Amino acid sequence: MIETLITSRKNEMISHAAKLLSGAAARREQGAFLCEGARLCADAAKSGMQIQKAFYTAHAAEKYSSYLSKIREKAENVYEIAPHIAPLLSDTKQPQGIFCVCTLPCESEQTETFLQTKASGCVVALEEIQDPANLGTVLRTAEALGEKAVLLCGKGCDPYSPKVLRGSMGAVFRLPMISIPNFAEAAPLLKKCGWTLWAAVPDSDVLAVTKADFSKPSVMAVGNEGNGLSKETIALCQPVTIPMLGRAESLNASASAAILLWEMMRGGASRE
Amino acid sequence: MIETLITSRKNEMISHAAKLLSGAAARREQGAFLCEGARLCADAAKSGMQIQKAFYTAHAAEKYSSYLSKIREKAENVYEIAPHIAPLLSDTKQPQGIFCVCTLPCESEQTETFLQTKASGCVVALEEIQDPANLGTVLRTAEALGEKAVLLCGKGCDPYSPKVLRGSMGAVFRLPMISIPNFAEAAPLLKKCGWTLWAAVPDSDVLAVTKADFSKPSVMAVGNEGNGLSKETIALCQPVTIPMLGRAESLNASASAAILLWEMMRGGASRE
Repeated sequence: MIETLITSRKNEMISHAAKLLSGAAARREQGAFLCEGARLCADAAKSGMQIQKAFYTAHAAEKYSSYLSKIREKAENVYEIAPHIAPLLSDTKQPQGIFCVCTLPCESEQTETFLQTKASGCVVALEEIQDPANLGTVLRTAEALGEKAVLLCGKGCDPYSPKVLRGSMGAVFRLPMISIPNFAEAAPLLKKCGWTLWAAVPDSDVLAVTKADFSKPSVMAVGNEGNGLSKETIALCQPVTIPMLGRAESLNASASAAILLWEMMRGGASRE
Repeated sequence: MIETLITSRKNEMISHAAKLLSGAAARREQGAFLCEGARLCADAAKSGMQIQKAFYTAHAAEKYSSYLSKIREKAENVYEIAPHIAPLLSDTKQPQGIFCVCTLPCESEQTETFLQTKASGCVVALEEIQDPANLGTVLRTAEALGEKAVLLCGKGCDPYSPKVLRGSMGAVFRLPMISIPNFAEAAPLLKKCGWTLWAAVPDSDVLAVTKADFSKPSVMAVGNEGNGLSKETIALCQPVTIPMLGRAESLNASASAAILLWEMMRGGASRE
């Protein structure tokens, strides 16, 4: 472990790390992502993420010493940075001054393993979710409600973007995330593994989610806010809906997902 | 109805309207709020908001003609604005070019009426909620799940701020919003009206929300994300909790609210 003080804005490690904020392409290229904040970085360390580099300001070292000591235990290299360097690595207005460069988990390996494993428990499949705040909230909810994994289908936002990491409260580190280019193409394989496939649709004529039998291993497909699920996906699943008392279609994506996952959890574990 | 073209950035009506974006104080002072976007403004008109002024760009008039005609029917005055005026009235990066100045509903009157009316149905009480996106989502969820009203307790964010209006998808126009400076002080009066008071707490030792009896008129108090509910509020209510399979305390405010309101709706209407 090396601890040196970085003061130059042009420091190469800083430029590399800062580039990880620019988008999914840069993260894939470097095989890494940048994690910000005392609690989130400590969470990454605790959750077994591989921490290549940790950066901290003197102020942060004092204010967040217990978090930093957890990060230090796991980080391969630790660097102090001058206060004016922190904003370069930050996605927030008031950076806490603690950052980690973590190795990007191998998605294709996770996906392959998942698609070869016998189904058990509940899983949510998100189709082309676009809003990072929504994705973060859904990942956090999925973890809290005991989902086994999250399937990210099609072209959605990157779970390793700073906003998703923050919103997920570290769920990104712990929930297996399975990338699937196309839900419809993967559906036969999912069924073969033993998954029952459900599609959440805003249609009061289909089965209410409260009446669905989630006692078997289940995948719940949820569409994005603008377009809902694709026709191809719906055709391959059993449709369910959230019965509402108020105006139809007026739950947002993360509130819908909370209710759907809640019903899956209750249905699998404790419905009477 | 007057229709003139406003081209000057210094136009007094525009400055007045723009000031409504600056904060709750300006909105209270003018007794008005500013609503943005074709759909939201049409929603305001449809929901019976009093529209003092409507502003639109030529581009918006063409693109959103059906929405604009609904707004025109209700607006007291309608003004075309030049394209360079739209950003002055907008809280978004890409304004659609349709805006309405609406009369602020009389909160104290709504509150007084509510506190004198016999309890019926379900109501959510939000204590000092700070995040406008969370508040917007909870209002939208409350409407979708058939809540009768929302109690806003203590110093929380203003429901007439642009972000809350947007996130609520117009629920702000339709849900009675009752302002209560202090939940604990109002509790005796609420009980007298016939409300059963519940407090949502992250404590696995208390009654699970799935076992609570919501068949009587119920108020569910929900705290803000950082601090939860105040001790005073909890002491005056029956505590309930969301049983979780995953890590404790890891649902965010809007996901918790979605599950709580969902269980209230089911418990009141259809629990078997």
